[in-house]
Amino acid sequence: MARIEPLKLGMVGGGEGAFIGAVHRMAAGIDGDWRLVAGAFSTDEGRNRRTGDLLGLDEARVYDSFDAMLAAERALPEGERIDAVAIVTPNHLHAPMSIAALDAGFHVVCEKPMSLNLEEAHAIAAAAERSGRHYALAFTYSGYPMVEEARARVARGDFGAIRLIQVEYSQGWLSSALDAEGNRQAEWRTDPARAGLGGCLGDIGTHAFQLAEHVSGCRVESLCSDLTTHVPGRRLDDDVSVLLRFADGARGVLKATQVAAGDENGLRLRVHGEKGGLDWAQMEPNTLTLRWLDRPAEMVRAGGPGLAETTMARLRTPAGHPEGYIEAFANLYRAVAATIRGGDAVAPAGAAAWFPGVADGVRTMAFVEAVVANAGSEQKWSGLAE
Amino acid sequence: MARIEPLKLGMVGGGEGAFIGAVHRMAAGIDGDWRLVAGAFSTDEGRNRRTGDLLGLDEARVYDSFDAMLAAERALPEGERIDAVAIVTPNHLHAPMSIAALDAGFHVVCEKPMSLNLEEAHAIAAAAERSGRHYALAFTYSGYPMVEEARARVARGDFGAIRLIQVEYSQGWLSSALDAEGNRQAEWRTDPARAGLGGCLGDIGTHAFQLAEHVSGCRVESLCSDLTTHVPGRRLDDDVSVLLRFADGARGVLKATQVAAGDENGLRLRVHGEKGGLDWAQMEPNTLTLRWLDRPAEMVRAGGPGLAETTMARLRTPAGHPEGYIEAFANLYRAVAATIRGGDAVAPAGAAAWFPGVADGVRTMAFVEAVVANAGSEQKWSGLAE
Amino acid sequence: MARIEPLKLGMVGGGEGAFIGAVHRMAAGIDGDWRLVAGAFSTDEGRNRRTGDLLGLDEARVYDSFDAMLAAERALPEGERIDAVAIVTPNHLHAPMSIAALDAGFHVVCEKPMSLNLEEAHAIAAAAERSGRHYALAFTYSGYPMVEEARARVARGDFGAIRLIQVEYSQGWLSSALDAEGNRQAEWRTDPARAGLGGCLGDIGTHAFQLAEHVSGCRVESLCSDLTTHVPGRRLDDDVSVLLRFADGARGVLKATQVAAGDENGLRLRVHGEKGGLDWAQMEPNTLTLRWLDRPAEMVRAGGPGLAETTMARLRTPAGHPEGYIEAFANLYRAVAATIRGGDAVAPAGAAAWFPGVADGVRTMAFVEAVVANAGSEQKWSGLAE
Amino acid sequence: MARIEPLKLGMVGGGEGAFIGAVHRMAAGIDGDWRLVAGAFSTDEGRNRRTGDLLGLDEARVYDSFDAMLAAERALPEGERIDAVAIVTPNHLHAPMSIAALDAGFHVVCEKPMSLNLEEAHAIAAAAERSGRHYALAFTYSGYPMVEEARARVARGDFGAIRLIQVEYSQGWLSSALDAEGNRQAEWRTDPARAGLGGCLGDIGTHAFQLAEHVSGCRVESLCSDLTTHVPGRRLDDDVSVLLRFADGARGVLKATQVAAGDENGLRLRVHGEKGGLDWAQMEPNTLTLRWLDRPAEMVRAGGPGLAETTMARLRTPAGHPEGYIEAFANLYRAVAATIRGGDAVAPAGAAAWFPGVADGVRTMAFVEAVVANAGSEQKWSGLAE
Repeated sequence: MARIEPLKLGMVGGGEGAFIGAVHRMAAGIDGDWRLVAGAFSTDEGRNRRTGDLLGLDEARVYDSFDAMLAAERALPEGERIDAVAIVTPNHLHAPMSIAALDAGFHVVCEKPMSLNLEEAHAIAAAAERSGRHYALAFTYSGYPMVEEARARVARGDFGAIRLIQVEYSQGWLSSALDAEGNRQAEWRTDPARAGLGGCLGDIGTHAFQLAEHVSGCRVESLCSDLTTHVPGRRLDDDVSVLLRFADGARGVLKATQVAAGDENGLRLRVHGEKGGLDWAQMEPNTLTLRWLDRPAEMVRAGGPGLAETTMARLRTPAGHPEGYIEAFANLYRAVAATIRGGDAVAPAGAAAWFPGVADGVRTMAFVEAVVANAGSEQKWSGLAE
Repeated sequence: MARIEPLKLGMVGGGEGAFIGAVHRMAAGIDGDWRLVAGAFSTDEGRNRRTGDLLGLDEARVYDSFDAMLAAERALPEGERIDAVAIVTPNHLHAPMSIAALDAGFHVVCEKPMSLNLEEAHAIAAAAERSGRHYALAFTYSGYPMVEEARARVARGDFGAIRLIQVEYSQGWLSSALDAEGNRQAEWRTDPARAGLGGCLGDIGTHAFQLAEHVSGCRVESLCSDLTTHVPGRRLDDDVSVLLRFADGARGVLKATQVAAGDENGLRLRVHGEKGGLDWAQMEPNTLTLRWLDRPAEMVRAGGPGLAETTMARLRTPAGHPEGYIEAFANLYRAVAATIRGGDAVAPAGAAAWFPGVADGVRTMAFVEAVVANAGSEQKWSGLAE
Repeated sequence: MARIEPLKLGMVGGGEGAFIGAVHRMAAGIDGDWRLVAGAFSTDEGRNRRTGDLLGLDEARVYDSFDAMLAAERALPEGERIDAVAIVTPNHLHAPMSIAALDAGFHVVCEKPMSLNLEEAHAIAAAAERSGRHYALAFTYSGYPMVEEARARVARGDFGAIRLIQVEYSQGWLSSALDAEGNRQAEWRTDPARAGLGGCLGDIGTHAFQLAEHVSGCRVESLCSDLTTHVPGRRLDDDVSVLLRFADGARGVLKATQVAAGDENGLRLRVHGEKGGLDWAQMEPNTLTLRWLDRPAEMVRAGGPGLAETTMARLRTPAGHPEGYIEAFANLYRAVAATIRGGDAVAPAGAAAWFPGVADGVRTMAFVEAVVANAGSEQKWSGLAE
Repeated sequence: MARIEPLKLGMVGGGEGAFIGAVHRMAAGIDGDWRLVAGAFSTDEGRNRRTGDLLGLDEARVYDSFDAMLAAERALPEGERIDAVAIVTPNHLHAPMSIAALDAGFHVVCEKPMSLNLEEAHAIAAAAERSGRHYALAFTYSGYPMVEEARARVARGDFGAIRLIQVEYSQGWLSSALDAEGNRQAEWRTDPARAGLGGCLGDIGTHAFQLAEHVSGCRVESLCSDLTTHVPGRRLDDDVSVLLRFADGARGVLKATQVAAGDENGLRLRVHGEKGGLDWAQMEPNTLTLRWLDRPAEMVRAGGPGLAETTMARLRTPAGHPEGYIEAFANLYRAVAATIRGGDAVAPAGAAAWFPGVADGVRTMAFVEAVVANAGSEQKWSGLAE
């Protein structure tokens, strides 16, 4: 067999001190599928350079701007230039950068939410289509093995027809006015110009929505929402409640909040059908609890007996050796690498090489727009734009 | 000191095989405050007699009807006749029987929901008022020691101003069409004539609502609801979702369902304020989890250090000796006994002798009416009648 | 059918402020099988009288001494006199009182440990034999429904041949020198004259041992122990570690301690066989976790699907309505009542009417003696006397 | 600042299909501190080559043997040759390879146990001493952030003087005779020639022992053990029970087993002092539970408030984003890299750059020898060789 070279990654954003950029780098590094070789980490020149040095990059490939990176990398010979760009900037840059990168012939791994609004999301979708490049969206939580197990079990009908879908994403870190106190993470997330239509809604409500539809296989038909801003002076919502009506009759509730003081990163999904239900919580991600109408509950465990093949493909260690958030994220990078290496087709949901992308992104932006519009009106139920 | 005689209890409903009647009897018996001495357990004569015999009752005090019991007991000398009536029938009998018992001079412990509708609830309230007798409503869950601890901590401001209130009550036992298959418990609960306006809503939604307002001390100002009947042929809702807006700005979600296949009796309350939040789940009732913005989470335990005096008053055993549902129920009977013995005043929420009563009942029936009306309309937000 | 009268109970010990006497009374009262009618609660006359009054006893049946109670009750006509005596005194009185009560023709429910030593245990056994009366020993934890479920599943071979038995009982309340500071509970438990050979060993080590043998069905053949007294000045052990070798090859560890500061009442049993294992913890007693070599772990739940009939017979409420310590205790009283009413034979382990008695008591006292002897010697392994 | 180049790693063992070699590679790769550049992965030439290709290695640096790797790498210019060797072979090769690598001037990261016996361990210690190179031993579990938090809290006296130390490591994967059925992992682990004196004892008992001493800061003074082989035909122990007596009076129990059918990787440590205790379990590693004599239990969480600086240094993500086994392992590689880069001294326990090494290894081999000797004798208590 031939030696397998790592794919080459360029990154925009993610300078020293940023959170999610470092996660992308670890996720890309853990399996040896990727090597970070280029970056435009910060518009602050010193910070940009320091980040490049800390990461051991060739200084010629630490660029002053995203545009400079695209231009210079494009000019390098194939085999040397980057294969893909990781976009880990605030939200308002996602769309222009994604489109530029795709049009420049690079694959893209972008942070969520996809864009500021649905119109931008459609523009990215069009760019992905015309470029023939892959576009991955960091809906990290769908990379967890037990999320795949949950999806697989719903899909094969273990629970019968689905009736109830409950998803919640509960954080507390924005309980005080961090955004007004100079916290960088908080600041841009609550600025409509950089975050988009939704605050908490865009930041974590989108994760919850994508997870719910991805696992249940059900599509939201209409919704009724309440958006609140609890912290005085904040410019975007910090608390989201949504009643959901799904096609085929399932009903649900989505709750996302960033002011549940003391809560960490409480993403939890429950799906119930006629015969039983599943329960998965991100903070203890290696257990999927199944409850049944007619027999004792089961704890299906990462690495344990009874898993789907597509779940096993997302695991690295035997049962009882906990894998976590970075590994879930790495599963996304691994799937993107496999897809790039394997050719053009994007794998269907559930395949070992599936990753969240254009369809998930457009759908979540339609969700964001519907929630915002409904919350601001006297109308009880609103549909989602296609 | 003088010898303390047990109070005398008569029961209507609760014949052999019924669930909640037996619970009332155990709850009344555990502390020695009450002795069951009379009953009209069933309209089926044989079942009525057998129940009386099994319970060791004097056969003269096993009555053919509720009216016969009231009349005969009233005719007995004070000190011999019953002090109170426990009403454990289907819902449609709660109001007429409560009113008759109060008017006959007996205290009442009644199963929830209070009545078929708000009008009846007001009529009971009036009867309690004019009779000067005590009326207790079996919102059992407020009898748990750690629920009292939760209430006490919110009341003393541990969490700061309250922002989020999430309550859920998830059962799965009505996932199949038990009501059409002759299950007695299921049958009357889904019959509008006997259950009232709400199915799941009246049966367990009322518990969730009472718990949320009782613990948080916040009052729902308006709500927006979705009521569903998932099981074909069922005549009342089996799934309830409600967005809640509280006075003073708190927001919440109430979710109650009886079709979460595999779920048992999943009542859970979370309340978050500016500084932290509490989390209590009925199925593991001896732990109250507190999470904080600025320090590690705490597990406050029944019998452990740091409890309010009013919590301690609801406990029987040292830490680590689990008390459960029957003990919570017994706390209600204990409080009613203390109130009867002590005189006329009903204790305020949080007092050792507090029990849920008229105010809780009227309020929950207003909730039921508002949810049903809102669910059937295109109006987004509805207020609660006073 | 004939009316079923409650059995009549007399109690010795358990005056105001005592812990376990109150538990016996609640346990006896919850199901209506028993009525407390007589007592010699304290050698302090005032305390004795006050306790009688608080409990609503006829003052003629509040006796100055245990002997007075036996004599007076024996003189009452059958049908009026007590059926059984509950002995809830410090350990040194268990044997003389049990023997006197049995010889006077009363059934006995006695607190554990059975006696000060094995010799006394044999004397009680002889008294029970010659009197034809029933002797129940309050190994409360074997009354939990899920303990019965555990026992039933081992007995029917679900796990294959048993290999590992791990039992631990971890408390922290004796971490400081309470015994030297006037705490009554602590004081007599650490006094060899009143507690017997073992401190922690006798108080809770006996529970752990009885539970392990009862559930596993395996018998300890030899043991190797380490007894420690951590708190300076304490006269008996407060920490126990024992290696166990069972007949048929199973191995085990028993750990009991009362100086695990912060621990409450942490009794836990794990039993593993060739195919899987069980895990039960007293502080969350309504779940029995089963783990398997070849399939996902199961959470068998009190009231849920898949329970043995003998488990169901020990439950009072549907799934999700937690039962606790008092209900477990009540199952013992219920079984004793059923046995007294039903005739002479003591039911075999696992029967609905089984309760721990003479055999469990003698066996645990042999265990206590073996542990103490082994701990004090250089011998590695010691057998248990028969 | 200067660009930071990754350190260069060579690996021996860890060919396609091996478990722990892949974990070492992920752990080394996740933070970008290391790059795998050379290997002798298997004595099977095809497997060796395929592994090199899969990992993208230059084929010139995929060596036929460990000796060839040492010789060739040593001949490369500094800056190009490997910095360290990762030894991930069966146990019998640990000592000769470690010594050869150290003597050739390379740093070593070796899998546990250190060696076949104490004599070999001393020989490695001597080689490390004379070479001036760093020797790290993969006691992975001490790399978990919350293990460091536990250690830090004991060290600063939060619990007062330590009294109880309980450690258990419960696996079930060797419940059946996998070793006789061709399972490679099982086969060598149960072969005395390749595994050493202990089976389960050497494989996981050593982890438990190291964790207990590392966190508690207490040293075992004497022990009393029982070693069992439950599976017929197996040549080494598969079940270990040890009573421990620590210097300064603490007592403990160590339980390690590989025949707890259904258990996964259940490493758990509890340490109790006069004032409270800690509880940490590897399968949910991001929570450290603290229980106190005088206040509610706390759940200290990875990334949450209240952590020691040395804990924070071992974390990569904010609270609620679970890190797991691979990240714990990576902390070891990170510390080794920091130590190599920073100069010669090995950091003391608790420092950000601390990693387990020679001292831990020698100590655990002394433990293994003492357990085996004691188990085979009639002597009750045995000391540990220095």
